[in-house]
Amino acid sequence: MVERIIVIGCGAAGATAAMQARKFNRKTEIAIINEEPYSQYSRCGLPYTISGKVREFNDLILMPPENWASLKIDAKFSTRVTRIDHSSRTVEYEGPDGSGTASYDSLVFATGARNADPPIEGLDKQRVYGLRSMDDAKALAKEAERAKNMVIIGGGLIGMEAAEAFHERGLNVTVVEFLPHVLLAMVDPDMAQIVEEQVRQHGVRLMTNTAAEAVLGEDAPKAVRVKNRETGDVEEIPADAVIVATGVRPVTELAESIGVEIGPTRGIKVDDHMKTNLDGVYACGDCAEHVEFVTRRPFAGGLGTVAVRQGRVAGINAAGGDAKFPGIVGAKVTRLFGVEIASTGLTEDLARRFEVTVVKGSVKGLTRPPYYQGGKEIKVKTIYEKSTGRLVGGQIVGPEDAAMRINVITLGIQQHVDAPGLFDFENCYAPAICDTWDPLVTSAEAVRRRLRM
Amino acid sequence: MVERIIVIGCGAAGATAAMQARKFNRKTEIAIINEEPYSQYSRCGLPYTISGKVREFNDLILMPPENWASLKIDAKFSTRVTRIDHSSRTVEYEGPDGSGTASYDSLVFATGARNADPPIEGLDKQRVYGLRSMDDAKALAKEAERAKNMVIIGGGLIGMEAAEAFHERGLNVTVVEFLPHVLLAMVDPDMAQIVEEQVRQHGVRLMTNTAAEAVLGEDAPKAVRVKNRETGDVEEIPADAVIVATGVRPVTELAESIGVEIGPTRGIKVDDHMKTNLDGVYACGDCAEHVEFVTRRPFAGGLGTVAVRQGRVAGINAAGGDAKFPGIVGAKVTRLFGVEIASTGLTEDLARRFEVTVVKGSVKGLTRPPYYQGGKEIKVKTIYEKSTGRLVGGQIVGPEDAAMRINVITLGIQQHVDAPGLFDFENCYAPAICDTWDPLVTSAEAVRRRLRM
Repeated sequence: MVERIIVIGCGAAGATAAMQARKFNRKTEIAIINEEPYSQYSRCGLPYTISGKVREFNDLILMPPENWASLKIDAKFSTRVTRIDHSSRTVEYEGPDGSGTASYDSLVFATGARNADPPIEGLDKQRVYGLRSMDDAKALAKEAERAKNMVIIGGGLIGMEAAEAFHERGLNVTVVEFLPHVLLAMVDPDMAQIVEEQVRQHGVRLMTNTAAEAVLGEDAPKAVRVKNRETGDVEEIPADAVIVATGVRPVTELAESIGVEIGPTRGIKVDDHMKTNLDGVYACGDCAEHVEFVTRRPFAGGLGTVAVRQGRVAGINAAGGDAKFPGIVGAKVTRLFGVEIASTGLTEDLARRFEVTVVKGSVKGLTRPPYYQGGKEIKVKTIYEKSTGRLVGGQIVGPEDAAMRINVITLGIQQHVDAPGLFDFENCYAPAICDTWDPLVTSAEAVRRRLRM
Repeated sequence: MVERIIVIGCGAAGATAAMQARKFNRKTEIAIINEEPYSQYSRCGLPYTISGKVREFNDLILMPPENWASLKIDAKFSTRVTRIDHSSRTVEYEGPDGSGTASYDSLVFATGARNADPPIEGLDKQRVYGLRSMDDAKALAKEAERAKNMVIIGGGLIGMEAAEAFHERGLNVTVVEFLPHVLLAMVDPDMAQIVEEQVRQHGVRLMTNTAAEAVLGEDAPKAVRVKNRETGDVEEIPADAVIVATGVRPVTELAESIGVEIGPTRGIKVDDHMKTNLDGVYACGDCAEHVEFVTRRPFAGGLGTVAVRQGRVAGINAAGGDAKFPGIVGAKVTRLFGVEIASTGLTEDLARRFEVTVVKGSVKGLTRPPYYQGGKEIKVKTIYEKSTGRLVGGQIVGPEDAAMRINVITLGIQQHVDAPGLFDFENCYAPAICDTWDPLVTSAEAVRRRLRM
């Protein structure tokens, strides 16, 4: 019988875990202990507070702090867990009202991730930021008012969304990406190139294959020294402010302190019930390591969708239920500089790393039939395991209708659809909407024929 | 060994059959005999020639007539098949160059459907039209220049698309629908109401539950006499021109003349290979009757997507191949008066007719997270077989992102996904695109809980 649950962290995973635990069990005592001063907010929405597509910081708060009481959940903010004793199942914490202890039957780690700062000189200067927390976004919104030159180190999803936001605010934006292309954790180079072209056309400077070596200046940045990794050319990019968005790593110190097992991706290892190796201890969201859906290899999602789904499972199970998480497909989308970018499952690169030999169907298609005014070109790539023909991934890039299309591929992956199965997909059709053979289907046709299925 | 193929009809089904037969077999002689003077064109695009979203009638031609020769396909237009002798496998025809005969090993019926005119007086007048053929559309484009009052009898997909087109051209448009709601072959009343509200707000007069009794006037219409089926009130609606769009029926006379079996929906009965009861004789598209995907009950698609897919299967098999058609899900979409309307699988009404007891999950959701500017409300309904929890249908109505979302439901139906399976769907998420729990998923959640799955 679970009488007390403690959830550490109040992001998407932690807040969902607490709410679902309450939904499952009306009587359990539930406490949330959260280091940040804020109740659950949308981390993914942060870049849009800069561009104004999110009007106010407060709009991002998904669960007003005062609402926890109505669920009979004791939520402590600005409160840090200082020690956990799992043998006595107690947690010590320190908050605005001093220190205290609480005991638990079930403990849920939803401690999230933090920026993994790369080895670049001068990151300790003022006006050098991450873009991960509400406070980061508040500071950056002020920079949008005063800075002229913004250098963003890292051309991943967050870096690119920040680039768009500051570009829209009129700043000179330079993105410095170490790898040969942006967004490589999301799409393959052929797709990234389409995005890069758009980004450059909008007047953002994009330096790929380029290492940021140092943030130069006294207290605050004057420039960022970068080095082209091919040519060796060194350049100093003027910078009033710098954003570092080179990836994150799970926050696991507390979990490690009580002997919770950490997996090869550095996340807290959990099973399908989001249970760790310790009895009564769960983890979910960015701090947790589950498995990639297709290969069942250790995998960390780092995605809001995954966080809420894992949070739900952890919360129900922590409260005595029996929910299961099916594995991470990893559907990712965004819209940048007028282009929708969507990806799901294995990229070609990820497939290589996981030693899955794949074949791909890559087509260009129109979002509407050619006779109907205003259709846009999209590029669709679907990826299949060569030995079985099974759909394992897909990417779509185009000015519209890319993101919603990726959902079909995700469900296809989850349902073990193969190339003939996707070819048999009866897509909807109407002149104002899309053509009779959706590019998704034609991409499958090429592979079906090639694999003689 | 198939040496000669004749395809009767050159719509989406017939043209696709001929092309796929050629793709499968480079040597077979292939002939198309088509009654209309036009080579394959998009029938679904016809309403948009009136509004101008399709610029020219010629833009609708998907296969220019001169291109058939390059595929070594002998395509005869304005040519009518007058007699078929299946014992000698010969076809007699009459065309611009007189009459002739041709012989076949395989015969493909792709004769389509024609308007099924309802018992209304005065439909033989001038300026009373269907909207099914290129010539209909050409005549109607002229009406858009001269008529002021347009009455459309039938509030199905074609009727409503015509209503929008003439409304956009500035005519006074009245739609007269016999049933209590428009679009009932596509959506259930709860969804139809959302559309009706939009249509009326745009200033189109919509008379539901109303019988059109007679087109009044001398040679041409002056008015349409209608009677409210509830109140019995009779009214004469001023009309300069009338469109009758009350549904179609398969064209099967030629097939019947050689003993091809007709099914209960009045279409040519075919198996999964699109083969009729006669050896070497196939049918596809609007003239054919296959099965509804979920119940395997006799079903006619009446859809372009189904026509091309069946055409492909018929063409390959007519040429000696072995392709299969998986059954008709019936995904349908359109955009009308600023609303996207999407439907797939069984509606609640169709489920009743097919004696499938269903439960539904019906939710309203936003197309973007609430904190991000500009999200629109959409209504999502997913429908499940009660005994198994299996997904059997879905409907989505809203100002955007309805159509592409329906594709997920269609694939789900085709893959036998149940409510827990759809609840586990990892939808894509980004503030600019959609929220963490897509309305599709929350609609499944309600049912999953209700069915205790």
